[in-house]
Parts: sequence; C-alpha cells; structure tokens
Amino acid sequence: MRIVLCDTNKTVCSLWRKMLPKSLLDKGKVEVHNTTFEALAHKLYKTNVNQLSKEGTRPYCSPEKCVVVSPGNSFGYLGGGFDLALCEYYGGKPFETWFRSKLNNEYYPIGSSTLIDAYDYFLPESSDKIRHILHVPTIVAPSHSSFMKAEPLRSGYEPVFNATWNSLRSFPSCCDTIIMSGLYTGYAGVPAEVSCKSMSFAITLYHLCEILPKDVVNLLTMYYLGYPFEDFFLHTASEQLELLGIDKEQLIAFDVTRDFIDAIIPSHLLDSL
Amino acid sequence: MRIVLCDTNKTVCSLWRKMLPKSLLDKGKVEVHNTTFEALAHKLYKTNVNQLSKEGTRPYCSPEKCVVVSPGNSFGYLGGGFDLALCEYYGGKPFETWFRSKLNNEYYPIGSSTLIDAYDYFLPESSDKIRHILHVPTIVAPSHSSFMKAEPLRSGYEPVFNATWNSLRSFPSCCDTIIMSGLYTGYAGVPAEVSCKSMSFAITLYHLCEILPKDVVNLLTMYYLGYPFEDFFLHTASEQLELLGIDKEQLIAFDVTRDFIDAIIPSHLLDSL
Repeated sequence: MRIVLCDTNKTVCSLWRKMLPKSLLDKGKVEVHNTTFEALAHKLYKTNVNQLSKEGTRPYCSPEKCVVVSPGNSFGYLGGGFDLALCEYYGGKPFETWFRSKLNNEYYPIGSSTLIDAYDYFLPESSDKIRHILHVPTIVAPSHSSFMKAEPLRSGYEPVFNATWNSLRSFPSCCDTIIMSGLYTGYAGVPAEVSCKSMSFAITLYHLCEILPKDVVNLLTMYYLGYPFEDFFLHTASEQLELLGIDKEQLIAFDVTRDFIDAIIPSHLLDSL
Repeated sequence: MRIVLCDTNKTVCSLWRKMLPKSLLDKGKVEVHNTTFEALAHKLYKTNVNQLSKEGTRPYCSPEKCVVVSPGNSFGYLGGGFDLALCEYYGGKPFETWFRSKLNNEYYPIGSSTLIDAYDYFLPESSDKIRHILHVPTIVAPSHSSFMKAEPLRSGYEPVFNATWNSLRSFPSCCDTIIMSGLYTGYAGVPAEVSCKSMSFAITLYHLCEILPKDVVNLLTMYYLGYPFEDFFLHTASEQLELLGIDKEQLIAFDVTRDFIDAIIPSHLLDSL
C-alpha cells in the first residue's frame, strides 16, 4: 500500500516531511507532493493518451487500484478546496449531483467513511480516472471553522486522527494506493501543525500495526488522544511495552500539544518501518 | 420498526415522554421504559422458558429480530452503565472478550457504528437472547466526561444526535425492534435535557423521512446542529418548506440551546407521525 499525500500548501507539505518517519518516506511507502490534485493525477497516471503513447511510458500504478479521500462535508457537496479539485477532475457539477445521489442525498456524521465507486459514473465508456472515492466528512457544513483554540485536542488532534485512521482502515483490498490532502486544514480551520501531527501519527501507527500487538496499538491511540484510562490495557500490555522499549510513564504523561511521536515510539521501531 | 427507549434514570424517561411527539408514543412506534435492561429484556421476550410455558404466553416480538445499542467506548469494553448491564445479560467477562474480538480488538472512532451478531456467541446451542448488538462508541475511554459546558452544541447536542442517527440508520433490515438507553448521559456527562432533546429530534426526523423530501430533512438536520449554510439547500428547498408550513426565517434562527423541535416542525407534521 502506498500513501500519497498531496497539498498545494507548502507548510503542510514541509511539516509532513518533517514529522513522518524517515524510513516511510525513504522507502516510498509514503509520498509527499506539493502540487494540485489535477497535476498529481496526471503525474501518477499520465491520463493523456496521446502523451502516453508519445512518451512510451506507462502509468506506474493503475487508476483502477487507487482511492482518493474526499475530506468533505456531511452532505457530499464538493464545492471547495480539495473537494472542488476532485469535482472538476471528475467533470464538475453533474458529477457532484451523481456523487450525492450515491450517498442517497443523506446526512453522514463526522466519523463515518463511505466508499464510492466512480467507475459507475463513466459507464458505458470505461474511464482512466481514479476509480474509488472515500467520503470522509470533516465538517457538517462550511458555515464556520470547527477548530476551537481553547480545545485543540477535541476539535483538532482527535478529529484529524480519526479521519486519517478511518481513511486507512477503509482502504479497499482491491486497491494499492490512497491519496489524501491536509485533512481539516481548509474550512475546518485546524492549524497545519495540528493536522500534520495527527496525520503523521495515524499513518505511523497504521504501519506499526504490522509489527506491534493490538493492545499496544490501542494503548498508543488512547494516550495520544488524551484519554488516560489505565484499566483498559495497562495490565495486559505492560510486559509488551517493556519488551518493545516503550516507556510506560512517558506514555501516561504524553501531551499531544507539547510532545511528538518519538516521545512514545522508540526510534528502533520507527526505523524498522 | 419499534424504538424501545430504556433507562433506569427517571429524569431521562420523563424528558423522553415530554419531548417526543405524542403521536409516536400513542401509536407505540416509540416506547419508554423506566427500568433495567435485564427487566426490559425479560418483559419483552419472557426468556424464562418455564415461565413461558406456565403462563402460556409468547414474546410479543422475536429476540432474533431485535438490536440493542451498546453506547460504548472506542475499544469495545463493556465495563459500566448500560454496557455493563448488556455484558451481564450475555454472560459477563467471557462475552466481553468475545465481543471485543468481533471488533478485531481495534479502535473505533466516535461517529462509527458496527453491527455484531450475538447469535454466533451462543452456537452450537441456539439462544433466546437478543440477537444483534450495535456498537456505537460515545466515548474513547471513560477517563473523564467529554461534555464541555461552554460548548454544549459540539460536545452534547451534536454527538448525541449523531449517535442516535447512526443507530437508526444502521438498523438491520432483518430486525423490527431497536433498544436504546439515554445516550451520553453516563460517563460522557451530557445533561439529560441535552441528550433527550437530541435523541427526540433524531427519532422524530427519522420518522419524518417517510413523508418529507430529502433536502428538507437535510435542512432540518443542518440548522438543528447549528451550521447555518444557506448555499447548500435553501435554493432548492424553499418552495418545499413553504408548502410544508415550515417557517424559513425561524429555521435559520433556530438555536438548539433555547428552542425546541416544534419551533421548526409544524404540529400538523408531528401529529401525522
């Protein structure tokens, strides 16, 4: 699985590069592209057939096996930011109408994720467009920013972590690539530092799932999000934490507004990704 | 579909009775039971076989066709409140371990809903227990209340509406009954008035889906939740609102902390449910 991060915001891209484990970037498991969605899609798939034959190149992965996250609103409108770019890529207003109909024109709460197969839209002619769109609402409606300065954890770190986690956990097995933008940095108004930290943590944790016991992954999630409830896991996972070199006291004292990932995930684990 | 509301808290039950449309209660589409879950289940299904044959009665609906909402935490532990009652009903700790394994021992964000078939747990002997459990996390971990007095909308009205809406929208087609307790009134610390208002509104709106156009349902949702964004629906739904006797200006000015349902849903619509 390849995670492709794409944003036109330079700060967001530079923070991703700084905050993500070097090993994930070096091995190409996570890519960062400071460009528009249109340019990225072209770069990834070279959708212009004439250019394809002229250059004699093949896209280096199939648009069939790709899913792009729509960091949308609860009603599936695609009117702004990354969603607007998505909408234009797929053909504008008629696509938005079709997309909303696939969501039954209904309300989807923040915390949900719904997979839409865009291939259906282009039938009977097949398409070389990215096939799957994951609707992950990050705002009910863009009437105002949802970020509250006094509550950065509950209105920033937590919802960004959840949206990233939901996107990765909803990754369809038929795919090999997922494209995400800087979640919550648009209308929702979450600062780039907050969004990038939670996205980086969720992506790191997602990769760590392959090597860490589930209880340890859950513990890291719980303390990252600021819910210090020892009764849930510490009694079963204490030994595992010690074996992994994760400092229990440091984990319990973790403060997402102050500390970064490497305070609770030892470098040997980050390097092994 | 029958919605069965059950809570040991008298205030919660009396607020439900006061806030829900009279027609839904009178017609038995929604029932309110001020009792324990164990007593409710016994009352609904008379699970004691001896008593069943002695009394010669049959349960008035089938436990096979029932789903009960677990207003749980993000990790599926069933340690407190209504969840503890659920856990004990299904057999205690071993059931909790099985339940968590059905959730893959993973983290489920607030906003998600996951259906678990409890029948599997009792095989090879079949069971007369309520067959389906809907895991709808309302708190990550019970380390502290999630309600913030200064933000009743974002930390109270909205999450309760979402949890109720998610529960009703996830209702499996094989079922005819759903049981819910006073959502967010336990560890989450949401005041009974706030929880009951959002539950009543979500239940009312769910029933109104049968008679209202989707855009109108979406408008009511958006303004109830305090996201006044006219660009989304007002241009398409204005005429429909007028036909239905819903006052547009009143809808736009709606304030959930001050107004109640009948401020935006005319009585002839409530009476028709």
